[in-house]
Amino acid sequence: MSKISLAFVAACVLMTSVAEAQDTNAPLMIARQGSFFVGGHDVYSETLSTQPAFAPTGTITVEQMYVRYQVPVAAKRYPITFIHGCCLTGKTWETTPDGRMGWDEYFVRKGYAVYIVDQVSRGRSAGDPTVIVSAKMGRTPADQLPTVFSAAHETTWVNFRFGPEYQKAYPGLQFPIDAISEFWKQTLPDWASSLATPNPTVPALSALAIRLNGTILVSHSQSGIYPFQTASLDTRGIAGIISIEPSACPDPTGDVTPYTKMPIMILWGDYIDLSPRWSPRLAACKEFAQAVKKSGGAIENVVLPEVGRRGNSHMLMQDRNNLEIADWLLAWLDRSIQTIAPH
Amino acid sequence: MSKISLAFVAACVLMTSVAEAQDTNAPLMIARQGSFFVGGHDVYSETLSTQPAFAPTGTITVEQMYVRYQVPVAAKRYPITFIHGCCLTGKTWETTPDGRMGWDEYFVRKGYAVYIVDQVSRGRSAGDPTVIVSAKMGRTPADQLPTVFSAAHETTWVNFRFGPEYQKAYPGLQFPIDAISEFWKQTLPDWASSLATPNPTVPALSALAIRLNGTILVSHSQSGIYPFQTASLDTRGIAGIISIEPSACPDPTGDVTPYTKMPIMILWGDYIDLSPRWSPRLAACKEFAQAVKKSGGAIENVVLPEVGRRGNSHMLMQDRNNLEIADWLLAWLDRSIQTIAPH
Repeated sequence: MSKISLAFVAACVLMTSVAEAQDTNAPLMIARQGSFFVGGHDVYSETLSTQPAFAPTGTITVEQMYVRYQVPVAAKRYPITFIHGCCLTGKTWETTPDGRMGWDEYFVRKGYAVYIVDQVSRGRSAGDPTVIVSAKMGRTPADQLPTVFSAAHETTWVNFRFGPEYQKAYPGLQFPIDAISEFWKQTLPDWASSLATPNPTVPALSALAIRLNGTILVSHSQSGIYPFQTASLDTRGIAGIISIEPSACPDPTGDVTPYTKMPIMILWGDYIDLSPRWSPRLAACKEFAQAVKKSGGAIENVVLPEVGRRGNSHMLMQDRNNLEIADWLLAWLDRSIQTIAPH
Repeated sequence: MSKISLAFVAACVLMTSVAEAQDTNAPLMIARQGSFFVGGHDVYSETLSTQPAFAPTGTITVEQMYVRYQVPVAAKRYPITFIHGCCLTGKTWETTPDGRMGWDEYFVRKGYAVYIVDQVSRGRSAGDPTVIVSAKMGRTPADQLPTVFSAAHETTWVNFRFGPEYQKAYPGLQFPIDAISEFWKQTLPDWASSLATPNPTVPALSALAIRLNGTILVSHSQSGIYPFQTASLDTRGIAGIISIEPSACPDPTGDVTPYTKMPIMILWGDYIDLSPRWSPRLAACKEFAQAVKKSGGAIENVVLPEVGRRGNSHMLMQDRNNLEIADWLLAWLDRSIQTIAPH
C-alpha cells in the first residue's frame, strides 16, 4: 500500500471509530484475522477405524486447541482470550441466540484483539475416538468407554438459571428465552471427564498467553477455573483474568501467590441465592478472593445485582443486556489492567 | 451514523478497495458478521449421562449445522458457502497450515459474502453421544456403537496426494509440506457413517441456500456430492456449484435435470493419474459432466494441470498457490454465474 493510501486508511479508521462509538452497525475494520492451533501431540493407535476404507493403524494428533482471532486496526496492548464453558464451544461469544451482536465482535469494536478458543476435545479441537473404536472391535470392555454426557434441556434450564424449573422463567430474566431453541443448538457432548486433570486446555492456554506476549483470559463456568490453573502453571503472559460464574475457584488455603500477579475479576449474574447449585460456588469464590486480597492481590468478586444490573442468567454474555455488561467489564479493564504490569 | 460520516465511510470503502486490490494486508472492511445454526431437531433420551452430576434423561438437540459468515461492504449478489470434507471442519478454508490467508478471507476481500459451515456431527455442529452412553451403561451391545474413524497421517498423506508414500512428497508439490504437523491438527474423528443418507448436512444446506435467497455452494472431497444431493432435493437458492475433488459424483444414468439449473464447476488438482484412489473418481465425474452437458447444463470438469496449474494436492485451498487458484475460480464465477439465473 502506498504512503498516501495508508494515511487515508488511518484517517478512515479514526472517523470510523467515531461512527462506531455511536453505531455498532458501522462497518468493522479488521487489521488481520485468522485461526491456528496451540498444543497437540501425536499418538499411534491400532484402533482408528472399523471401516475397510480407512486403515485401523497409524498416527493421529490429539489435544490441540483451536483458536480464531480478529485484530482491529490500532488494537490495544492486550488481546482478550475468550474460553467457553461446559457443553459449549467458542460459539458462546458469537451472535446471540436471538441474533444480536456477541462479545467477540463488540470487544473488537472497542479496540481489543479477540482470540476465541474451542476447548480441547470440543468443537474444532479434535477428540480421540480410539477407545470407542476399540470397544466396537471388542478389544476394550464397554464399561471402559470414555465418559461423555450431553446436558439435557430440562436440567440446563435450571442449572443455567433461566428459571426455577423447566419452561418457567425467572421474573425480569435478561436471557432471550424466546430464542431458547437456538441456544440448545449450541450445546455439544462433553468429554472433559475423560481427559487429564488439569484439562489439556490449561497448558494450551498457557502456551497461547506466552505466544501472545500477554492476554486477558476470560473464562466461563466449567472453564472458570482454567485461567487460575494456567496461572498456577506459569504466570507469564497472563495480563489479567475475568472469570465469569466459575464452577470452581482455587482452594483459598493453598498457595495463592500466582493470583497476586495480575488483576482478577470474578463476575456473577442474578438469582444466585435461589440456586442450590450456585450459592455454595459463589461462597467458595468469595473465600478465595479474600485469601488473594490478604496476600496483596488485586481481585474483585462482583455479583451484578449488587452493582445495579439485574436479571442476568448464567449465559450473561448472551443476555439482552450483554453489551451493557460488556461496557461494565471494559470500564473495569480500563481501570485495572494498567495498574499491574504482566509478570 | 450521520449522513456525513456515512458518506465518508463509503469513500473509505472505495479507497480501501483500491488499496486491497494491490495488497491483501490492507485493513478488511466488514459490513456484518456472525454465526447461527440451520436445521436440528429434538430427541428425548434416557442415556445422556453416566455421571451423577448430570441427568441421564431428557431432551437434546441434534443434527443442526453451524454456519459462520462475513459480509463485505458492497457485497456481490450471491454469497459463497464453503463446505469442508472428510475428517475436517470449516477450518479448512481459514488460515493455511503455514499461516497464509485462507479462501474465507480472500473471497470476502474479492467482494463475496462468505458462509462457512461445520458439517452435522463435526466441529461446532453437535454429535449425538446417546448410543455411546448406552453402551457404557451396558444397555446397548458394543458392536452397535456408532461407526467412527480417525484418518491416520500415514494414509491421509497418500489419499490427499501429498506424495506416493508417507513422508515422500511429489516433485513440485504445492502443499506446504513443512507445515504438515499444523495440518494434522485440523483433522477430527468422522461420524458420517453413523448418520443418515444423504447426510443431514444436505437438507441443512438446502435450508441455508433458501434462507440466503441464493448462494454458490463450494464443496470438497467427502462433501463434494452434497451440493448435487442438495440440488436434487430442491434447486431453490443454488446459484452455482463448485465441487472440488468430489469423492463421488451423481450417477450419470440417473435424472440429471436438477444439475442443468445452475452453472457447475468440478475442479481437480494434480497427480490424479498417479492415484488409484482418485483416477476412477475423476473418470466417473467426467461421465457425469458429459451427461449433464448433453441435457443442456452449463457444467465444466477441469483438471488444473490441463489449464497450466501444476503441483496441486487434494487440499488445493491450502496449497502455496491457493490464491492463484482462487483467482481462477473468481474469473469462472464472473463469467458463469450471471449467465443462468437461479431457479
